[in-house]
Amino acid sequence: MNKAPKTAISPTRTEDYPEWYQQVIRAADLAENSPVRGCMVIKPWGYSLWENMQRALDKMFKDTGHRNAYFPLFIPMSFLEKEAEHVEGFAKECAVVTHHRLEPDPDTGGLRPAGPLEEPLIVRPTSETIIGAMYAKWVQSYRDLPILINQWANVVRWEMRTRLFLRTAEFLWQEGHTVHATQDEALEETRKMLDVYADFAENFMAVPVIKGEKTAGERFPGADMTLSIEAMMQDRKALQAGTSHFLGQNFSKAQEIKFQDQNGEVAYAWTTSWGVSTRLIGALIMTHADDDGMIVPPKLAPAHAVILPIYRDDQQRAEVLSYCQNLKAELSALAYAGRAVEVEIDDRDLRGGEKKWYHVKRGVPLRIEIGPKDLAKDAVFLARRDTGEQSSLARQTLIDSFTSVLDDIQNSLFQKALTMREANTVVLSNEKEFREYFTPRNPDQPEIHGGFALCYFESEETVQPLLDELKVTIRCIPLANNDTPGTCFLSGRPAQKQAIFAKAY
Amino acid sequence: MNKAPKTAISPTRTEDYPEWYQQVIRAADLAENSPVRGCMVIKPWGYSLWENMQRALDKMFKDTGHRNAYFPLFIPMSFLEKEAEHVEGFAKECAVVTHHRLEPDPDTGGLRPAGPLEEPLIVRPTSETIIGAMYAKWVQSYRDLPILINQWANVVRWEMRTRLFLRTAEFLWQEGHTVHATQDEALEETRKMLDVYADFAENFMAVPVIKGEKTAGERFPGADMTLSIEAMMQDRKALQAGTSHFLGQNFSKAQEIKFQDQNGEVAYAWTTSWGVSTRLIGALIMTHADDDGMIVPPKLAPAHAVILPIYRDDQQRAEVLSYCQNLKAELSALAYAGRAVEVEIDDRDLRGGEKKWYHVKRGVPLRIEIGPKDLAKDAVFLARRDTGEQSSLARQTLIDSFTSVLDDIQNSLFQKALTMREANTVVLSNEKEFREYFTPRNPDQPEIHGGFALCYFESEETVQPLLDELKVTIRCIPLANNDTPGTCFLSGRPAQKQAIFAKAY
Repeated sequence: MNKAPKTAISPTRTEDYPEWYQQVIRAADLAENSPVRGCMVIKPWGYSLWENMQRALDKMFKDTGHRNAYFPLFIPMSFLEKEAEHVEGFAKECAVVTHHRLEPDPDTGGLRPAGPLEEPLIVRPTSETIIGAMYAKWVQSYRDLPILINQWANVVRWEMRTRLFLRTAEFLWQEGHTVHATQDEALEETRKMLDVYADFAENFMAVPVIKGEKTAGERFPGADMTLSIEAMMQDRKALQAGTSHFLGQNFSKAQEIKFQDQNGEVAYAWTTSWGVSTRLIGALIMTHADDDGMIVPPKLAPAHAVILPIYRDDQQRAEVLSYCQNLKAELSALAYAGRAVEVEIDDRDLRGGEKKWYHVKRGVPLRIEIGPKDLAKDAVFLARRDTGEQSSLARQTLIDSFTSVLDDIQNSLFQKALTMREANTVVLSNEKEFREYFTPRNPDQPEIHGGFALCYFESEETVQPLLDELKVTIRCIPLANNDTPGTCFLSGRPAQKQAIFAKAY
Repeated sequence: MNKAPKTAISPTRTEDYPEWYQQVIRAADLAENSPVRGCMVIKPWGYSLWENMQRALDKMFKDTGHRNAYFPLFIPMSFLEKEAEHVEGFAKECAVVTHHRLEPDPDTGGLRPAGPLEEPLIVRPTSETIIGAMYAKWVQSYRDLPILINQWANVVRWEMRTRLFLRTAEFLWQEGHTVHATQDEALEETRKMLDVYADFAENFMAVPVIKGEKTAGERFPGADMTLSIEAMMQDRKALQAGTSHFLGQNFSKAQEIKFQDQNGEVAYAWTTSWGVSTRLIGALIMTHADDDGMIVPPKLAPAHAVILPIYRDDQQRAEVLSYCQNLKAELSALAYAGRAVEVEIDDRDLRGGEKKWYHVKRGVPLRIEIGPKDLAKDAVFLARRDTGEQSSLARQTLIDSFTSVLDDIQNSLFQKALTMREANTVVLSNEKEFREYFTPRNPDQPEIHGGFALCYFESEETVQPLLDELKVTIRCIPLANNDTPGTCFLSGRPAQKQAIFAKAY
C-alpha cells in the first residue's frame, strides 16, 4: 500500500499554502476569527509570542533613548483633513464613531444609536495627526527637542479581505513618533530604527530581512522617504516586516510643530514615525512552521521546553513527576537570551501520542520525555522540534548543554530561512526572464513560484504596467551594495539602482 | 514681612484640593487633556508608572495561573442586548461606530462618514459579552475548564465630566475573565483576585485598602456579587481601587457557556471578571503627593534616584560627571523589588534650583547631589523626597544602604497613609453623629471633611434617602471582623453587618 507520509497539518505547504497557513494557526491555537467582522482573537499561545516580541523590542527602543506614552484612540475627523496625502491614504477605510449613546428602540425592542456627535471621531488607523497635535503644544524651543516617544496600541483599518495576523481590521502594534531640530537628525533616526527592526527580525525572530527604501508609489502617505525590511516567506512571496518613515516637514507644517532655534529663529521641526505590528506573528509562522505545525524560535518561545512524564501506575507517577519537577527547577534556573528558561510539565490525562503532537503543533523548541527507564539511568529522551532529531542523554548533560542547544536551534532556523531566500533570489536582466520567473509553471499550485528578483530599473513609471500585469511589486531598493549603475531590465536604458521585485502579502 | 511658606504646587491641598490634584499632574508631567473630548494623553513619566504597575500585576496574575489574550475592540450592538442588567449599565454612554469609510464632502470640501454598517459596533466599555461569545465556543467539556484569561486593553465609556486618570472617556485597564465548572471555584477565584489587588495596592502602591463587598445597588451590572478594595485619599474621600465580580451563571446563560460535566450532564458554567485601571495612578497621586508635587513609592518608581552633578567649569565638570557615572553604574547593579535599580543623571544646562524642583515635583524617591567638595571627600549629598531629610554620607555607605533606604521610604509611605486613614475613620451609631460627620464645617473648604464612617445598617433601602441627601455612598461591607450583629445607626433596628460610608470619587 502506497501511503502518503503522515503530517500533522493538512493540507501541506505544497498542497495548498494559504490553507496550510490557516491550519497551522488553528493547530497551534494561536488565534481565531471573532464574530466581529475582520477582528481576530489572539489566543494565549499566540499572545505570548507577541508579549515576548514586545519585551525584546521595548528594550531596544529604550536602549536607543525612547520612552513610551499613550495617546487617544480617537482622532477628530478634521485632523485627518490636514495632511493631503495622509487623507488619501487613511481616510478611505476606517471605523467612524458618530454617536455616544444607545437607547431603546421601540420598533425592534432592541437598541439604537443616539446622541449624535458634533464632529465624527475616527478610530486611529495610525496616530501621526493626533500625536502631532500634542507635539505642536509641547515643542516651543530647541531645548524641547528631540522628542523620542513610542506607543504600544491597537489600531483599526477597515479591511474587506482579512487573514489572521496578516491583514485584520484591528491589530496591535507599536508606533514610534519622533521630532527633531534638523533634517540630518531625523534621517539618522529613521535609519536607526530600521536597523533596530532588522536586528530584531534576524536575531530574535530568526527571519532574515533585506533593508531597503520604498519607491515613491509605495511610500507611507505623507512621508518623504519610507524604509522597510522585507522578508521571504516559504511560498517565496515577500512580506514587509517593518517600516520607518522620514516625514520631512510635511506633518510639522500641516500641524504647526515649530520651535525657536538657538539663533532665535522659528523653524518647522522634522518628524519620523516607525512601526511593527502583530503581522510579525504571521511572518514568524510563514518563515518557520512546517507541515507538522508551528516552530517557535527559542528567543521568542513562551516555553523553551515541555516535559512529558510517562508512567503506568500511581507509584511510577509519583516518582516520575518528582523527577520531572526537579529537572524543571534546574532548567528554570538557567537564563537564555535575557530571560529565565521556561519549562512546562504536561501531566494532563491524555494519550502519549496526542500529547506529543499537541506540543509539536504548538512549536515548543524542545520536547523532553521521561519514563521509569530513563529515571533508572538518570537520563532523558530529547526531541528537537526544528530538525526532529531525537536522542537519549544524561540529565546533567541536558542541563549543561541546554542553552547551547537553544542557540543552535535559533541559529539553524535563521540559516535555513536564509538559505531558502538565497536559493530563491535571482538577478534578472530582461523582460523575458522577468515574465518567465513570475509566471506560475504549475497552474495547480499558483501560490508557490518565483521568488525575489533583483533587477535594475529605470523608474517606477517604466515598470509599473508590467508589474500590474504580473501582480508583482517593487519591494524595496536595497540599501546595501547598490551604488553601481546598470541597465534597466525592461527599457534597456541606464538605471541607477537595483530593486527587489516579488509577489507580496 | 509675613511670607507664606513656599510650596512648589499652588494651590495647596488645603486651599483647593481638586485644583491641587490637577496641578500636581501638570507639575509632574504625568498626563494632560487631549483635543479629543474626555480622552487623556498619558505622558512618559505617567506612563512608566503604568508600565511598572503592569509588570507587577502581570506577574501576580501569571503566578496565580492566568494567561493573557486579546479580544476585539468592537462589540456588535446585539451582544449588549443579551444580558438585561448589563445593557442598563453599559449601553447608556458609549462610543458607537456606524460607518466604515470617509468620503469627500462636496458641501464643505472636507470629509464625511460613508459606508454605513449593517449593525452598529460599540467600542468596548468592558468585554464580558464579546469574550463570553468566544468562551461559548471554547467550552464544551469539564476538561476545558477552568479558563483563566486576562486582557490588557483600552476601554471607552462616554463621560460628561472627566478628570485626568480618575474618570476619562478612554482609559487603560486589565480585565480578567474566568470560567469555572462550579460555583465554589468561581467564588474562590473572585476572592483570590481581590486578594491579589489588595496585595498589590498595599505592597507596591503603598496604599492601604479595605476589602469588602458592594451592596446590591453598587454591584457591577449583571453580577451576583461585587468585591472591591477601597482606599482613603488625602481629602478623606474614598476611591474604589479595584473590583472583582462573581457573575454567577448570568452571563453563561445569556451567552450559552455550557459544558458536559464528568457525569455527562450539560451544565451552565460559572464566570467571574475583575479589573483595575489607570485610575490607580490617580489613587497614587491622591495618597502620596504633597504640596511640593508627586511622591512615587520606590517599588513603582521609573527612577529610584536622580543624580545632579554640580560644577563651575569644564574641568570640574569632567571630574564630577565621571564620578557620577561610576556611582550610577554601582547603584544600577543593585536590585530592588525584583528589578534593577534605575538611576538618572540630570546634566541638563539648567540652574541648580530649577533642576532640583523638577525632580521634587516628579516625585523621584531620592535626590543625590555631587559637587567637587563631595568628590574630594568621596561623599554625596542625599535628600529623601518623602520626608525631606537631607544628609551627607560616604559614597560606599550610600551604596550599602541604598535598597534599605528605598524599603524605608516604601514602608513610611504606607504607614503614613494608614495612620491618616485610621485617624479619619470613626464608628457612628446614630443619625445625628452621621449628619454632623458628613456636613462640612468650613463651607470655604467643602472638599476636605469627614472621612470613613463604620456603621451598622439595616438595609441599603433604609439608608439610601439619607445618603442621597448628604452625597454619601456605601463603599463596601468589610469582609474582616464583621460577623457580630448590631443596631442600624438610622432605624435603630437590628442589623447584621457594618459598612464603610464615605463621600467618594
